Amino acid sequence: MNRNLKIAIVGSGAIGLYYGGRLANAGADVHFLMRSDYEHVVASGIRARSADGDFFLPQVKAARTTAEIGECDVVIVALKATANAVLADLLPPLLGPETMILTLQNGLGNEEDIAELFGNERVVGGLCFVCINRVGPGEVEHYGQGMIAMGEFGRPVSDRVRQMETIMKMGKIACRVTDDLARERWRKLVWNVPFNGLAIAAGGIDVAEILSDVGLKKLTVELMEEVIEAAASLGHALPEGLITDQVDRTGTMGPYKPSSLIDYLAGRAVEVEAIWGNALRAGQAAGAEMPRLEMLYFLLRKLCSASKLPV
Amino acid sequence: MNRNLKIAIVGSGAIGLYYGGRLANAGADVHFLMRSDYEHVVASGIRARSADGDFFLPQVKAARTTAEIGECDVVIVALKATANAVLADLLPPLLGPETMILTLQNGLGNEEDIAELFGNERVVGGLCFVCINRVGPGEVEHYGQGMIAMGEFGRPVSDRVRQMETIMKMGKIACRVTDDLARERWRKLVWNVPFNGLAIAAGGIDVAEILSDVGLKKLTVELMEEVIEAAASLGHALPEGLITDQVDRTGTMGPYKPSSLIDYLAGRAVEVEAIWGNALRAGQAAGAEMPRLEMLYFLLRKLCSASKLPV
Repeated sequence: MNRNLKIAIVGSGAIGLYYGGRLANAGADVHFLMRSDYEHVVASGIRARSADGDFFLPQVKAARTTAEIGECDVVIVALKATANAVLADLLPPLLGPETMILTLQNGLGNEEDIAELFGNERVVGGLCFVCINRVGPGEVEHYGQGMIAMGEFGRPVSDRVRQMETIMKMGKIACRVTDDLARERWRKLVWNVPFNGLAIAAGGIDVAEILSDVGLKKLTVELMEEVIEAAASLGHALPEGLITDQVDRTGTMGPYKPSSLIDYLAGRAVEVEAIWGNALRAGQAAGAEMPRLEMLYFLLRKLCSASKLPV
Repeated sequence: MNRNLKIAIVGSGAIGLYYGGRLANAGADVHFLMRSDYEHVVASGIRARSADGDFFLPQVKAARTTAEIGECDVVIVALKATANAVLADLLPPLLGPETMILTLQNGLGNEEDIAELFGNERVVGGLCFVCINRVGPGEVEHYGQGMIAMGEFGRPVSDRVRQMETIMKMGKIACRVTDDLARERWRKLVWNVPFNGLAIAAGGIDVAEILSDVGLKKLTVELMEEVIEAAASLGHALPEGLITDQVDRTGTMGPYKPSSLIDYLAGRAVEVEAIWGNALRAGQAAGAEMPRLEMLYFLLRKLCSASKLPV
């Protein structure tokens, strides 16, 4: 495969705009499926302020339907997990016999959802360890970090994953491949479970406010311990020192609002099941005790039940 | 003591207006310390819609200061626990050598606060098991229940407590005396900890909404179990079946908003330390594990920190 791969970005929120934009900016053949941002992006392009260098794409290949885009080599799914029900209708026009589907979504269960619809062998997953918000139509702000950890769904790293890694790196996206995608998902949950959750449950506060409150900081650590213990029960040993690392790293983020809080405050759907519900069910099925995660899940499920918009 | 006892009501919110009003309605010599409601009550009296019979007191002995009221036989403290710091200045004009102070406040630590200021021997405590809200100046709505459980602070029932019981009953207030006031406080916490707390933490919902959510109902029961275990660790054995009783009884309350939620929604101070903080500290000091209560306390402390008004 020496030709330029054709890549579709399905879901043009912060993650889709930023990573798709970086790939396009490096010359990749990137097609964005767009709804609300379509007019704006066609007229004014995609703009990113980024800790790794700002970029502006005046000309964007944007489409309103996947049929307009047609068959691709790679489909990057960056929709919210709460919208997975639409994938059955959305993706087929993009899929040829060899098309790879890379989900960059949060939480647990996304590879499974996609595999069930389109076959296990297509599915690759990626975890974005990134501080990023969509700040307007076609416009993102990237505050820091940005690493994608990418791997096959339940298989060792493959050539196509390594090729995608190369493409990511050409787009100035930090990337590493992993033979254990599930373990990476749990590693990401160690951050998402407390910070995305407490940001909402403690009244709409940013990560700096969470860490500056002695009770919420203790709770953050305890929630992380529960997630790490659940991961271990499932056979995913996470590294020693992870909690200290994550707390310290978060301390450098300033008043960052996790994506779930942004969604919550905007009245959009929050990925309650993908992040907290599926983590809880998986951990409990493996025999882990998770009283704080369960409580957080119950609270979030109620708090976010008024948020009905799927994207 | 055959003469009519002189009684002061300090704190004329729902509890003070309702119980003080019932006593006055039965002919007791009741003096209300009033701030915001003073003008209205002097002009228009106290009005209660009550499950135990409405009443209207056109003529009320209201005062703006405790000095105006002067020495009393009984001082009933019905302020919020968050206002206990003002008692040192407020109560002295009401106190003669034999004056009894009856606190009807919520949570733990109120008898201790008052004993420290005015002497252990004055202090009597009462727990109000009642559904009641202040709905306007001088106006309360009593939805149901109403029992006061009353006892000496750290001593067996005394003549003065039995006499007060008689007076309460003359005011058509259900009342029982107890030799174990601390145990009654814990029994009340079994209800207040989950319902007052989850009503706030789950986004401002009433008890019917809590019980209709399968997750929040499970959490309610688990929080009750933690409180009962803490009480047991402290030597206060609560009756078998208490959880089922309380959940069932709450199911008959309809869309009742606990007092803490009313305060929270109105931007007033919430008794976070008296109810959750002191219960947590007492239980933990006795070796009880209370992960959910601790989490609830941390969340409420943050959620309610914007509420600054003391009463």
